[in-house]
Amino acid sequence: MTDRLPRTREQRKTDTLAKLSAPAMDVWVATAAAEADGHATSHLVPLSLAWIDERVVLATEADSATARNIISQRHARLGLGPTRDAVMIDAELEQACSLDEVPDELARQYAVQAGWDPRKAGDRMRFLVLRPLRIQAWREVNELAGRTLMRDGAWIT
Amino acid sequence: MTDRLPRTREQRKTDTLAKLSAPAMDVWVATAAAEADGHATSHLVPLSLAWIDERVVLATEADSATARNIISQRHARLGLGPTRDAVMIDAELEQACSLDEVPDELARQYAVQAGWDPRKAGDRMRFLVLRPLRIQAWREVNELAGRTLMRDGAWIT
Repeated sequence: MTDRLPRTREQRKTDTLAKLSAPAMDVWVATAAAEADGHATSHLVPLSLAWIDERVVLATEADSATARNIISQRHARLGLGPTRDAVMIDAELEQACSLDEVPDELARQYAVQAGWDPRKAGDRMRFLVLRPLRIQAWREVNELAGRTLMRDGAWIT
Repeated sequence: MTDRLPRTREQRKTDTLAKLSAPAMDVWVATAAAEADGHATSHLVPLSLAWIDERVVLATEADSATARNIISQRHARLGLGPTRDAVMIDAELEQACSLDEVPDELARQYAVQAGWDPRKAGDRMRFLVLRPLRIQAWREVNELAGRTLMRDGAWIT
């Protein structure tokens, strides 16, 4: 599929951190709802992220499917594109903050990186602080081996 | 966020069909698993798609989380990027075919568009034929109004 050599783990970590720290970076956020009948329903939406103290921070409205699913299931799976230079993150919810609760410094850093300020977007906004448990990064098939960079919340060295 | 004027619905449909029909197009596939304890877990992965007879066709291994979730829940939510020119599709599983079952013409068309042939990728490959129920397309905030192009499986005219 490609002529490029697979990147080293160190290079993938560098590239992944650059991607997570980039201005106006969006992430695909996949969440799941447990339905009353025992079924599960998936949701997916792109959102702006900020990377603060090794956490992925999102902001969205309390009554969005994404916020409801993350708060009830405590889990999300995140994808940063493009699809042939992907970073996949399995993350657990560490904290959900209303505008009254959010630390000033976290909100400020989010606004700087994301390029918009959820504090000016209405009282229903929530900050969702997600702790990565597993991070994987790959471009093409030849990078599937060695794609895991973090496991159980710890960078692999 | 942008100076561009919002596109008409007709233009968004044209752009969406062009995206779905593009060679080597990948899609973010979000699926959900219903866990035994009542929780739901989300999965997300980029896969190649083909757009055949108004269906999204995917191919992946039978024991992948994506195939297992789609076959058990009969549902997926799909996102085509980039995130600021997104197409979101809620789809139901119409058919899951093993290599023995897949119609030749469908497999052939998939290989032409995707640029690889699942029939050469091992016996565990499954073709998943998904029928779109809802399709939405937007670029920036000014396109959120009017983003729904298909509802209940029918294009809005």
